[in-house]
Amino acid sequence: MPRTTVGIIGAGPAGLLLSHLLHRQGIDNVVLELRDRTYVERRQRAGILEQDTVDVLRLSGAGARMDRQGLEHHGIELRFDRRSHRIDFPSLTGGRSVMVYAQTEVVKDLIALREEADGTILFEAEALSVDGIETDRPAVRYRHDGAEHTLDCDFVVACDGFHGIGRRSLPEDVLTVTERTYPFSWLGILADVAPSCDELIYAHHERGFALHSMRSPEVSRLYLQVDPDDSTDNWPDERIWDELEARFAVDGDWELKRGPITEKSITPMRSFVAEPLRHGRLFLAGDAAHIVPPTGAKGLNLAVADVTLLAQALTRHHTRGDESLLDAYSETALRRVWRAEHFSYTMTTLLHSSPDDNDFDRALRLSHLRYLANSAAASASLAENYVGFSDN
Amino acid sequence: MPRTTVGIIGAGPAGLLLSHLLHRQGIDNVVLELRDRTYVERRQRAGILEQDTVDVLRLSGAGARMDRQGLEHHGIELRFDRRSHRIDFPSLTGGRSVMVYAQTEVVKDLIALREEADGTILFEAEALSVDGIETDRPAVRYRHDGAEHTLDCDFVVACDGFHGIGRRSLPEDVLTVTERTYPFSWLGILADVAPSCDELIYAHHERGFALHSMRSPEVSRLYLQVDPDDSTDNWPDERIWDELEARFAVDGDWELKRGPITEKSITPMRSFVAEPLRHGRLFLAGDAAHIVPPTGAKGLNLAVADVTLLAQALTRHHTRGDESLLDAYSETALRRVWRAEHFSYTMTTLLHSSPDDNDFDRALRLSHLRYLANSAAASASLAENYVGFSDN
Repeated sequence: MPRTTVGIIGAGPAGLLLSHLLHRQGIDNVVLELRDRTYVERRQRAGILEQDTVDVLRLSGAGARMDRQGLEHHGIELRFDRRSHRIDFPSLTGGRSVMVYAQTEVVKDLIALREEADGTILFEAEALSVDGIETDRPAVRYRHDGAEHTLDCDFVVACDGFHGIGRRSLPEDVLTVTERTYPFSWLGILADVAPSCDELIYAHHERGFALHSMRSPEVSRLYLQVDPDDSTDNWPDERIWDELEARFAVDGDWELKRGPITEKSITPMRSFVAEPLRHGRLFLAGDAAHIVPPTGAKGLNLAVADVTLLAQALTRHHTRGDESLLDAYSETALRRVWRAEHFSYTMTTLLHSSPDDNDFDRALRLSHLRYLANSAAASASLAENYVGFSDN
Repeated sequence: MPRTTVGIIGAGPAGLLLSHLLHRQGIDNVVLELRDRTYVERRQRAGILEQDTVDVLRLSGAGARMDRQGLEHHGIELRFDRRSHRIDFPSLTGGRSVMVYAQTEVVKDLIALREEADGTILFEAEALSVDGIETDRPAVRYRHDGAEHTLDCDFVVACDGFHGIGRRSLPEDVLTVTERTYPFSWLGILADVAPSCDELIYAHHERGFALHSMRSPEVSRLYLQVDPDDSTDNWPDERIWDELEARFAVDGDWELKRGPITEKSITPMRSFVAEPLRHGRLFLAGDAAHIVPPTGAKGLNLAVADVTLLAQALTRHHTRGDESLLDAYSETALRRVWRAEHFSYTMTTLLHSSPDDNDFDRALRLSHLRYLANSAAASASLAENYVGFSDN
């Protein structure tokens, strides 16, 4: 019967980084991942790394390719009323910035590192249940190669995303869930064309929100607010480019470059927090416990912040037998989670047009946007949240 | 048939200050006021003067008693989770602050000044209609001493409050109204007791919002969030003090001083903006055009900002025949109005408990409050709005 110190469910960035950080502290761990390696290395997700995320990757030796290929961004552009307003991060936050480097690349780097170190990642291993979490010998039952197995652990960390079994393994009477849905979704595309801008553009238009982002100097990533029940079938390439052009339109010179669209998908938007993040010997991290709408680029960064705290807490327990950081994990992590939830909600409602909006909402939004563009204090508040703020 | 350059409807602070400012520029004007002088001088309203308001009163020679008796405040206290957090205005806004000086005292000072200068304020004069606003000879028809009269003017300014005839004199197809109501009201009291604090306390408690303010070193002004259909009959003095004590409760030493309650009233809360603020020769100023919930202390200050702009615009027209500032008045004033609407809405939803709140709203609010207490940028944004921000 296999046994490890920390059983990790999920080989997304949270699970992989935790595995890597624990390994560096000499803590034995095993990662169980439902999908195969190719699938995991290809799924497109976020692409903005906060300063703290960059720091932890770099300090843990996982930042080499990020530092070579990532694009350091010192600001974003807000666009509304056919005008552009830049929010400068370093001058507003004491020198902090963000890195544009796709989550899928972070995942590839971490898998390569774990492989080099002979770490155990079981792909195509379906976690079936987490048992004995109220004892000091929790176990993950899983199916792999057509047979059922049990992984005995000292601790189990569920990094298995919103649909994983991790959260559902906490007793129902322990878990509190708060959530909000939004009356819009994002249509996201990848296009083989150089970005039309050096920095991200967050555009508010009466037709809806649009975001111009990038994956590399050759690949653009763009998003359009669409109805939640819309389908990519309704969005031939030309319609997408026309709509993006309309929403990014600005007085003066600016041109949206078009190119072949290589991926197209629609993602719903949700705010979701499950509390607490720990029960007995089971811990939740990342999307398993909380979801933010993507407008603030916080999802990946929260996952990294969670497992960074967990790695510190598990290390403290491992080296000193001190459980204080493990006991504090849920409360500590949730402060940052709720900061990000508030920021993401604020950015989302600020930048999208909702079918529920009345004239008052629209006028307030316009005043808020103008204020952000004109007030150094308001710009600094946006900037510090964007590069990462924790009131710990 | 009487005739004047500027006919002003309403002898609240807006109408009186406009009359005073125009007089100082040698522009003839007449104020018509529905109520008698005693009523006008006694009605209790706001008490926080923004820096800009203080400046215009002082510069126009109306600030002498304010400077002697007003209380300059350099900050406010936010209180939640049984803890206090001070927002310091001067250090966060480049030296700006506010003055605690009751609106009713401003009104008395302005009436005295107009009287000294032989200005015309007709009390108990009921404005019946504003006619000919699309001509250059508008007129106000009014009833005074049991007879109907007509005041011929070059311009009419309606400072006659939310229920006045001014706004209703604009053609319906010209006016756009946006508004929001709130599921709570304020129970306000005046008490003959020294304030229990040097600065205003804005308290958020799960039982609801409470505000500790003051009128003078001997008179406290306090407010409690109550249901909109509540009645002062349900609030004997002792219940009010007990409830205030519960909502202001804090860990550590602090005592709410109790004293005889001399006034008690319940006020509904509303956000309301009518646009444009001008049609032809009729201008709207203050509550006639816009209402804010009182949480940001903006109502009186917006009225003062409106008439300050109008006085400049009418003076420009009077001295140079230049109508450009009159033409710009509505748009210019509305930028500040919407900034104040957004701030007042934000402060209101931040600090009150709404029966419509779900767990997500409550958690976001707590995160927002903690963020305000911990972030210099967020504190600076609150401070600059509180002392008065215009993105003109």
